[in-house]
Amino acid sequence: MIKVSLPDGSIKEFEKGSTPMDVANSISAGLARNVISAKFNNKTVEVSTPLTTDGSLTLFTWKDDEGKKAFWHSTSHVMAQAIEEMYPGSKLTIGPAIENGFYYDVDFGEHKISENDFKKIEDRMLQIAREKHDFKLREVSKADALSYYKEQNNQFKVELIENLEDGDITFCDHDSFTDLCRGGHIPNTGFIKAVKLMSVAGAYWRGNENNPQLTRVYGISFPKQKELKEYLELLEEAKKRDHRKLGKELELFTFSQKVGQGLPLWLPKGAALRERLENFLKNAQKKAGYEMVVSPHIGQKELYETSGHYAKYGEDSFQPIHTPNEGEEFLLKPMNCPHHCEIYNSQSWSYRDLPKRFAEFGTVYRYEQSGELHGLTRVRGFTQDDAHIFCTPDQLDEEFKKVIDLTLYVFDSLGFENFTAQVSLRDPENKEKYIGSDDVWEKAESAIINAAKEKGLNYVVETGEAAFYGPKLDFMVKDALGRSWQLGTIQVDYNLPERFELSYKGSDNETHRPVMIHRAPFGSMERFIAILLEHTGGNFPLWLMPEQAMVLSISEKYEKYAQKVLTLLENNEIRALADNRNETIGKKIREAEMNKFPYMLIIGEQEAEDGTVSVRKRGEGDIGTMSVEDFAEIINKEIKETLKTFKV
Amino acid sequence: MIKVSLPDGSIKEFEKGSTPMDVANSISAGLARNVISAKFNNKTVEVSTPLTTDGSLTLFTWKDDEGKKAFWHSTSHVMAQAIEEMYPGSKLTIGPAIENGFYYDVDFGEHKISENDFKKIEDRMLQIAREKHDFKLREVSKADALSYYKEQNNQFKVELIENLEDGDITFCDHDSFTDLCRGGHIPNTGFIKAVKLMSVAGAYWRGNENNPQLTRVYGISFPKQKELKEYLELLEEAKKRDHRKLGKELELFTFSQKVGQGLPLWLPKGAALRERLENFLKNAQKKAGYEMVVSPHIGQKELYETSGHYAKYGEDSFQPIHTPNEGEEFLLKPMNCPHHCEIYNSQSWSYRDLPKRFAEFGTVYRYEQSGELHGLTRVRGFTQDDAHIFCTPDQLDEEFKKVIDLTLYVFDSLGFENFTAQVSLRDPENKEKYIGSDDVWEKAESAIINAAKEKGLNYVVETGEAAFYGPKLDFMVKDALGRSWQLGTIQVDYNLPERFELSYKGSDNETHRPVMIHRAPFGSMERFIAILLEHTGGNFPLWLMPEQAMVLSISEKYEKYAQKVLTLLENNEIRALADNRNETIGKKIREAEMNKFPYMLIIGEQEAEDGTVSVRKRGEGDIGTMSVEDFAEIINKEIKETLKTFKV
Repeated sequence: MIKVSLPDGSIKEFEKGSTPMDVANSISAGLARNVISAKFNNKTVEVSTPLTTDGSLTLFTWKDDEGKKAFWHSTSHVMAQAIEEMYPGSKLTIGPAIENGFYYDVDFGEHKISENDFKKIEDRMLQIAREKHDFKLREVSKADALSYYKEQNNQFKVELIENLEDGDITFCDHDSFTDLCRGGHIPNTGFIKAVKLMSVAGAYWRGNENNPQLTRVYGISFPKQKELKEYLELLEEAKKRDHRKLGKELELFTFSQKVGQGLPLWLPKGAALRERLENFLKNAQKKAGYEMVVSPHIGQKELYETSGHYAKYGEDSFQPIHTPNEGEEFLLKPMNCPHHCEIYNSQSWSYRDLPKRFAEFGTVYRYEQSGELHGLTRVRGFTQDDAHIFCTPDQLDEEFKKVIDLTLYVFDSLGFENFTAQVSLRDPENKEKYIGSDDVWEKAESAIINAAKEKGLNYVVETGEAAFYGPKLDFMVKDALGRSWQLGTIQVDYNLPERFELSYKGSDNETHRPVMIHRAPFGSMERFIAILLEHTGGNFPLWLMPEQAMVLSISEKYEKYAQKVLTLLENNEIRALADNRNETIGKKIREAEMNKFPYMLIIGEQEAEDGTVSVRKRGEGDIGTMSVEDFAEIINKEIKETLKTFKV
Repeated sequence: MIKVSLPDGSIKEFEKGSTPMDVANSISAGLARNVISAKFNNKTVEVSTPLTTDGSLTLFTWKDDEGKKAFWHSTSHVMAQAIEEMYPGSKLTIGPAIENGFYYDVDFGEHKISENDFKKIEDRMLQIAREKHDFKLREVSKADALSYYKEQNNQFKVELIENLEDGDITFCDHDSFTDLCRGGHIPNTGFIKAVKLMSVAGAYWRGNENNPQLTRVYGISFPKQKELKEYLELLEEAKKRDHRKLGKELELFTFSQKVGQGLPLWLPKGAALRERLENFLKNAQKKAGYEMVVSPHIGQKELYETSGHYAKYGEDSFQPIHTPNEGEEFLLKPMNCPHHCEIYNSQSWSYRDLPKRFAEFGTVYRYEQSGELHGLTRVRGFTQDDAHIFCTPDQLDEEFKKVIDLTLYVFDSLGFENFTAQVSLRDPENKEKYIGSDDVWEKAESAIINAAKEKGLNYVVETGEAAFYGPKLDFMVKDALGRSWQLGTIQVDYNLPERFELSYKGSDNETHRPVMIHRAPFGSMERFIAILLEHTGGNFPLWLMPEQAMVLSISEKYEKYAQKVLTLLENNEIRALADNRNETIGKKIREAEMNKFPYMLIIGEQEAEDGTVSVRKRGEGDIGTMSVEDFAEIINKEIKETLKTFKV
């Protein structure tokens, strides 16, 4: 008998040689039907692998990442079988699961493959799937393995095997197909109900451009046809919402090869959008007692040596800027905090002056490899909605709650309804890893947890995840496509106050160290706008839209009235444009909808005569004919519903 | 007889050997009384120098810069005489006129001199002055000159003479005093009616720290006692208004040794002031059809090679920023224009789209030697209120007028009433020095002159002063102390459109080059705020004041009412603070006046009961008791009078 411990902490006894499937069966028939992969003593095994020692077992279904991995890797075997049958002489190399699906790198030899061939490969794969072939892993000797692939003239597999230890080599069989494989398969091909090949691309053997070029075939599979359909729809939607595509279409930002990669140039509509977001936060921050400051985008190397940033990031970031003489060295600022510490230090403070809350939309520069850059989400220069709160340890509790309020106000105003929080605490077993006394840590950690509780956040606590300089709270939001993004961080810092020797005079007339809170509800303007674009597909909350309405004249005759309507709208602080082109009204409406105008105001003879506009709402259609003033009221009401005033 | 031509174009005949004084006498007795220096054929001469050839003569009085120079240089002789008498054994070196007064570098030998000695030196100087000794220039041979100073053991003068050509050496005598001197003196010491020694400082012989150290004595003199008095008052006032002093007192900005010299950190009040100025200009620019853009603070070296800035400034400025790998090179941006050209180039334009007016409060970085740095007027990083207008050559005329309107609106709203303009044109004799065809230059130059005329500017035309890339118009303002500052420039540019290959499609369907206008009404936020501080002494126009009113409670009892008044003021958008300290009302008023609060609202029992405030205006005193609403009306009326709405 062997002892098997399960994730719920229970330990069960089984006969030696029992398989993970036997364990699943012992728990429930339902689980046994769904289990597709397993880990035993933290090593991936097949559900049919006999267990011969005591150990801990985890069973995976399609819902688990490990389950998906086994599912997709197994599907790559099925694809490989189909390819081998349909393209004789093709040589297989490796075929792993990836984040979404799998690929197989194949040397197609004389054959060519294109997207036009996908359908017939998919059909053959589904046929193999329907035949419910078991995946069977077996050990082979190195000699046998080598001779198997040498016979096939497959130098790639031979090379792989040559690097393996004898006794550690396994083949996986299903149907008539055999592949060199480490394991991690679903029980049989029958689980695969839907298959989609996604693309082909070139790939060098082992990623080295001096090696032969192979063809990489990407695919994905699902246990239900419906899931494939949903996935493809999501992909389609994500493609439509790609912020790089929308940013171009909506004329928000651009990049220039000459200015440099990863350095966005904000076009007028984008700059105005940014400014609206900044003003929105500025207004709330003013109410919450923040004061704006302005600091330069460079600082002496010494500044970052004091802060510790140079020691940590210096070598991997933009290199120092030298002066033509005087031997000075400056760095592009990677963070605003050292500058704000120097502003704090420019005068002396009493406990009565605290908290001081210095805010700045500070543009920082951090080097990223060009291959890592991606639209606005991964850039080399970005503007943080940064602020640093300098307070006494006793004020931490109150300040934390206030920052949470502000962050929730931001999420609410911008339509992020779905979010969670993570509280990161220090590892109590390794206190020496952290700066600051037990006393201050306990105070800060309980301040964060209390604040999270009191504000009703849906949060998890991660022990040992705090930075060495203090505990923190991070917000994760889910966008409209269900993707998670980290937004908004609130971080306690005991380190910089030490390094910059910050102080205040306490009520005891003694000198004390203030605590510092770093916080940025947006994170950065660039990343936030990218996420907002993908979340809303460009249909921003009305208060934020570059233009809130488009006046569409039935014919050029009404250009003058259109101008009058525009002026009225402007007087009512509604941003609008007019389309007086000589086009059909149908075409004008279609274009305005495509360009995300939330409202269209159609004007013709009747409207010009009555001094009205016929209003269409994007996605809803006609909502009636009315005066511009009445329309302004509708807009202002809609804005008030989303953009509430921040209350402290 | 010789022919003497005068600045008014007239040519008069005089006997050979006549002096400039004879010429002055021939014009008017009044001129003869006032003439103190002259230039003949562009060489400085004494008014007593006999003229022996034909030539052009300019006569100078105290009102001319050249006249002041002669006046002050002559006074340095008088000071040298006094010093030689009073400190025997002192060795004189050089004693030139400077921008305000003169100095003499003296080796005092065993003697020491301090500010305490100034009075007795001044007294002796005035005595010499009253004796009306003539200044007499005479030629000496090199041998005689050397032997004269060798006898005095004055190695400094000996060294100077050794570097002169024989036949080109003159001594100047007055009273018993003789000095090696090139000339340029007033007729006699009697013109000097007022003298003030200003300071002493150390100075190395010939500015080289390996040479002996001398004592530099600074002084100034005037033809009237009243002028000295006014000068000293102005100095006193300038010291009070020094923007570095006011910036500290009003908590507007600070510098940090760690962040780096010449890199201002804007404190909350200063950042808010900047933002108000920016918003003021943004609002006007929006009405004038400008669109804001945002660009990064760095760009690839290639960008500035394209623009030509690297070739021109690269070596003398901040050095390139290298990346840890990929071999890229970036520069801190010294100008925003290359970025805006790339924004223009990010899409294609038709003549119907122009003019495009891209504006940005763009922070740029330019290296300055640390010795050149001065407060906010000479910094290493500053924010330009930059904009670039891209237009067709035909639109230049209209655009120039619009930019002048905007600039005048800025000056008017900020209380700069006294300004002139300079139009810089190309040198028509050296057309090859300039880029762009005759045709476009003529168009642009006449556009600028027409605009200046039509807008009624007080302007001068300077031929040959244009940049190689286009003509320009600069504004010079006089501040309250009569000092001139260059503010606001409008510049046509034919160069960058070529270098960046900018284009638009004309009505002829052909591709054309747009013209570019650079303009910045403020110049830079830093320099403008410095000038505004010195111009207003910190008493900014009411709309710009950090705080517009201070609530002063008679005693701590009225703190609650003070809070109520503050809330009412805030509701009326008036920026105010309250002083509820337990101090006498007299002290509170004095401090509030010193801190430049334009209005003080005093509250005591009566006011709390009636719901009123007793209003004091800074510098004017009590203006009555009234409700907060009535006070708000006074403020808003005053603001409306200075801050008019910009009309296009």
